Amino acid sequence: MPFVRISVPAGTAAAARAALADAVHQALTETFDVPQDDRFQVIEALGGDSLVCTPSYLGLSHARPAFVQIVCSVGRSVEKKKALLRRMAELAQEGAGWRREDLIVHLVEVQKENWSFGNGLAQYA
Amino acid sequence: MPFVRISVPAGTAAAARAALADAVHQALTETFDVPQDDRFQVIEALGGDSLVCTPSYLGLSHARPAFVQIVCSVGRSVEKKKALLRRMAELAQEGAGWRREDLIVHLVEVQKENWSFGNGLAQYA
Amino acid sequence: MPFVRISVPAGTAAAARAALADAVHQALTETFDVPQDDRFQVIEALGGDSLVCTPSYLGLSHARPAFVQIVCSVGRSVEKKKALLRRMAELAQEGAGWRREDLIVHLVEVQKENWSFGNGLAQYA
Repeated sequence: MPFVRISVPAGTAAAARAALADAVHQALTETFDVPQDDRFQVIEALGGDSLVCTPSYLGLSHARPAFVQIVCSVGRSVEKKKALLRRMAELAQEGAGWRREDLIVHLVEVQKENWSFGNGLAQYA
Repeated sequence: MPFVRISVPAGTAAAARAALADAVHQALTETFDVPQDDRFQVIEALGGDSLVCTPSYLGLSHARPAFVQIVCSVGRSVEKKKALLRRMAELAQEGAGWRREDLIVHLVEVQKENWSFGNGLAQYA
Repeated sequence: MPFVRISVPAGTAAAARAALADAVHQALTETFDVPQDDRFQVIEALGGDSLVCTPSYLGLSHARPAFVQIVCSVGRSVEKKKALLRRMAELAQEGAGWRREDLIVHLVEVQKENWSFGNGLAQYA
């Protein structure tokens, strides 16, 4: 059900991009009850001035940011969201060597009937 | 009012991309009361590892997926949403030869006052 | 807190892209209480048929459209949203020479706990 878009700076190695995508998906399966085979992701690499990130905000510095947008169904608690964010940063560091400060995430929540996984059906409605 | 983003694998022929975009727009006009000239779309082609899709989910196999994100105003019924999803898959198959299993869609709903179609005005507020 | 994605036609000069991004950010700081250093943006340039825009809608003509998507937290009044849209169009024209008719915007609102600015924390929760 989640649809994920990850935006990283151009020049990020293919292995790091893949490991980042894996980290986001694994965190979703561990904390958001997302099935293993429910995986739909875009990973885009953005050249120099296409990705604008503040050098620091809220006391965190940013060197090589990854922007992660997760569209998911409504209904998760604040605690679940916190667990997802925490786990994602851990796994991105472990798997991709991504600085924890540089994983910048937001969730966009939608209604359950807003998804189609093919065949023109709203499978969750 | 809808804003549409379609993500297809690189190598998708220009004619197929255009037909897919037409199919999404036509389905919106037929089922969501979207005016013909209310059309704002991005169609992006994503190279090899930039588009990650499960080989199958919920019993549907995926070979050459198109991810379709539709931002629209809140207020459509579940029935209308189902009609949109159904019609979109039909038209994508008819017009672009797109496998119905491979049209993967989600809707993001926003408030009516959240749109500007130019001139700095919120035309629907 | 806002996450901004700006989509412009390929061929838009780098200076115009940068000025457009500046305009969007400045308008957010002036009208939406966004801190100066709370800046996270993607500016993508889209070749020919990747950006589809109606020639006109609601009486406004479109020549060289910029699509602007702003993900932000819920809670702004309609008046604040109108002020943001108005100011953005002014600044885009002043700074980037962008036609006011051609700034096409939508806001996607999310819960406060849906953001992480790094370190795996939900800083606004």
